[in-house]
Amino acid sequence: MSNEEYYETLDPEDWDEMRGLAHQMVDDAVEYLKTVGDRPVWQAVPEAVKETFKSGLPEQPGDATAVYEEFLTNIFPYPLGNIHPRFWAWYMGNGTIMGALAEFMAATMNPNIGGGNHVAGLVEAQVLNWMKEVVGLPTDASGLLVSGGSMANLVGLTIARNTLAGGDLRKNGVQSLDRKLTVYASTEVHSCNQKAVELLGLGSDSLRKIEINDDYTINLQKLESKIVEDIQSGYQPICIIATPGTVNTGAIDDLNAIADLCLKFNTWFHVDGAIGAIAMLSDTVRPLLTGIERADSIALDLHKWMHVPFEAGCVLVRDEKAHRDSFSLTPEYLEKTEGGLASGPVWFSEYGVQLSRSFRALKIWMMMKEHGSKKLGRMISRNVDQAQYLGRLIEKSAHLELIAPIGLDIVCYRYNPGETDLPTLNHLNRSILIELQEQGIAAPSYTTLNDRYCIRVAIANHRSRYEDFDLLIEQTIRIGQSISA
Amino acid sequence: MSNEEYYETLDPEDWDEMRGLAHQMVDDAVEYLKTVGDRPVWQAVPEAVKETFKSGLPEQPGDATAVYEEFLTNIFPYPLGNIHPRFWAWYMGNGTIMGALAEFMAATMNPNIGGGNHVAGLVEAQVLNWMKEVVGLPTDASGLLVSGGSMANLVGLTIARNTLAGGDLRKNGVQSLDRKLTVYASTEVHSCNQKAVELLGLGSDSLRKIEINDDYTINLQKLESKIVEDIQSGYQPICIIATPGTVNTGAIDDLNAIADLCLKFNTWFHVDGAIGAIAMLSDTVRPLLTGIERADSIALDLHKWMHVPFEAGCVLVRDEKAHRDSFSLTPEYLEKTEGGLASGPVWFSEYGVQLSRSFRALKIWMMMKEHGSKKLGRMISRNVDQAQYLGRLIEKSAHLELIAPIGLDIVCYRYNPGETDLPTLNHLNRSILIELQEQGIAAPSYTTLNDRYCIRVAIANHRSRYEDFDLLIEQTIRIGQSISA
Repeated sequence: MSNEEYYETLDPEDWDEMRGLAHQMVDDAVEYLKTVGDRPVWQAVPEAVKETFKSGLPEQPGDATAVYEEFLTNIFPYPLGNIHPRFWAWYMGNGTIMGALAEFMAATMNPNIGGGNHVAGLVEAQVLNWMKEVVGLPTDASGLLVSGGSMANLVGLTIARNTLAGGDLRKNGVQSLDRKLTVYASTEVHSCNQKAVELLGLGSDSLRKIEINDDYTINLQKLESKIVEDIQSGYQPICIIATPGTVNTGAIDDLNAIADLCLKFNTWFHVDGAIGAIAMLSDTVRPLLTGIERADSIALDLHKWMHVPFEAGCVLVRDEKAHRDSFSLTPEYLEKTEGGLASGPVWFSEYGVQLSRSFRALKIWMMMKEHGSKKLGRMISRNVDQAQYLGRLIEKSAHLELIAPIGLDIVCYRYNPGETDLPTLNHLNRSILIELQEQGIAAPSYTTLNDRYCIRVAIANHRSRYEDFDLLIEQTIRIGQSISA
Repeated sequence: MSNEEYYETLDPEDWDEMRGLAHQMVDDAVEYLKTVGDRPVWQAVPEAVKETFKSGLPEQPGDATAVYEEFLTNIFPYPLGNIHPRFWAWYMGNGTIMGALAEFMAATMNPNIGGGNHVAGLVEAQVLNWMKEVVGLPTDASGLLVSGGSMANLVGLTIARNTLAGGDLRKNGVQSLDRKLTVYASTEVHSCNQKAVELLGLGSDSLRKIEINDDYTINLQKLESKIVEDIQSGYQPICIIATPGTVNTGAIDDLNAIADLCLKFNTWFHVDGAIGAIAMLSDTVRPLLTGIERADSIALDLHKWMHVPFEAGCVLVRDEKAHRDSFSLTPEYLEKTEGGLASGPVWFSEYGVQLSRSFRALKIWMMMKEHGSKKLGRMISRNVDQAQYLGRLIEKSAHLELIAPIGLDIVCYRYNPGETDLPTLNHLNRSILIELQEQGIAAPSYTTLNDRYCIRVAIANHRSRYEDFDLLIEQTIRIGQSISA
């Protein structure tokens, strides 16, 4: 080993040079976010840039500034677009500069919040307490920050399975049961819940997808009939998943009615609140979510409508013991001690799948402190109002039609020049959507409702202004007419 | 809605003020990391500071500078300690300043790499290709960046279950099988694998923990006997988990021998390489990992020995189709389009549990470009050499003894003044460990091997110097003598 190798580290050889580079990054990032609305919402990565990502494993060190310049040239100009005021695709938040800075400080401290006695655990516990306050769960409920809604739902459904199956399911497995377990949700349930049920070994057949009403909420009569039918056939219903804010149309299932059914049939009440639960912050939405406080478990996604940078999911669980009993496993190398860094009251790794866990609590903590719940709620209320505004624009236009009732902040519409058959209409609207995106104008996404392809505008965006929707309508019609002509 | 509310966003009212704050953060972070070795490795959070984390949900906005000052006072001084040159607890990396800055830039762009056509997917694909190169998997293998080893192992085991159980397991569930599935690993297997098996509905009983040899590697004869016995009893073995670098002692299972057994019994070959797989970068360790390139799936943890900030796990899978078949689910709102932002070749959400996924690829990409594989490998080689150095110090001391063979970079030892019974020795070493931590000297962790409590030094640390281990030994003896006296 050379003397140089003996002492080399991954720290910069020249801290001042790295500090200068870091200041440059800050200036670039601030400028980038400040001017985001002036750029196209999306642009394709040029082929020449794509080529640069085909090079093999770098063997030798590169100059830090050169690495950053490569980032500036080949990466920074081509974001997904969800930071832009006219991005309304799928369902995502924008993020904020404070959220991004918090990620930097969190990674500087770089703690692992699997467990141990250090401040990050206190920050996470406080953030979880705030979330309990938001949704109305008792303070002795438990919770966990996770990667996102998929994981939050998986955690909730795991506890439902382990708690209600009876016996020691963790030890004996699903095959030890003498009857099959079933889970209920509407046909509009998010696909991650099906993935969770599959992962848990229950099989997607065990997820009973119940028909919806005209407003895309779960049909309660059909739900109850199916449960009764399943019980008579020897199945064991263990959980009903309610969705306040479905991904297609933002429909809100009747939470109180579902809570009642869960009581009646002794099943777990899980709320997939990835879209809607954080809307408890909004004075206008909160009344629509009555009953959420009765849930056994709730999935939230703070990287959606609370605009925390990815990833920031959260699961809350009424029964702390049930939660812990489903995930705690403490081998000899993770035993707690009475002092030192392995003490500490809560080991979050006992409440979920991950052992190593990043300090994602910090960005939530800083953003909550910076903006406060009222303002975060106003952002949500305004998006809901913007959805109604967009709906009125669509209804006023002879060329456009709503395809579903507007739920929360999600508007599904299509361009319809009249006297056109369904396949042609579907193809036309698909083309309009791609043009809207490729011309960098706006980025809605799409879905298909009753075979009708539609442009889907999911407005979880603190940067959107009312005039952005005027532009969307104007451009939809322009592109529609241009393609039809 | 007031005019102010009509236009308010979560962006700063004054971008220049926020820019100034961001520059302050950069200076503070650089200073923090530059001087980390001058501070105690760990210090408890004072009670008064703990109290501050009990306040309820903030309702009103707070000044950004005030929020940051609260962070500086109450959070920044109390990290877990794994950034420190003398942190050797559990198994974690240090992180780097470039990794932290990459997190900032990633969160500024804030893409969601669940899918879509944008540059972040290309970066992730490139990073995955580099990892295939590192472990020797073919270029047409698939992969996914995940939160960490727990998730990487879960993904690997899910594919093993779904691929080898036969039939449509995703649809029909585990209860549809006519025989029980079994998974094999040594008694030293990391606990997250048991959690994965439980989650998958197989039950922890189905994880056969095979006895180890004196060097803490899996006993191959006992492994084969158990498989044969299980087959004769009507079980279906589906997977053997090999561990190159066990968490207790860093033992490396014989990967080629296990690969042979997997071939012989037609089982999936999963490598839990959370600790050891990235040591393929090290010229001295690589020969010990021969056979890893034969794996069906490999879990890696780049936030460990590659020092990427949390979270940075990775799973690689030889059979892309098997991987995709286990996780792909494409509802109507996620259909791909031929152009626009919903095009793009790879949708990573089809390869794992998460739909929304952060841009964790960027920090890996920037760190790999900055340091190169050779230097990252030298960091690993030096830690292995430091473990041997520490071992020699222990063997030279009359007061200390090694409790297990040194595997890779993990040293398990205890203070033993002689003529002391086991319970007293265990208690004594527990006290020494807590003193080492509470005095801020060094942070090893602990484990118990054959009932013997030991101080466990896991040296995944690019900042550790040889003299840090001289200090550890000197202080262990000092504290041991002081407690014994």
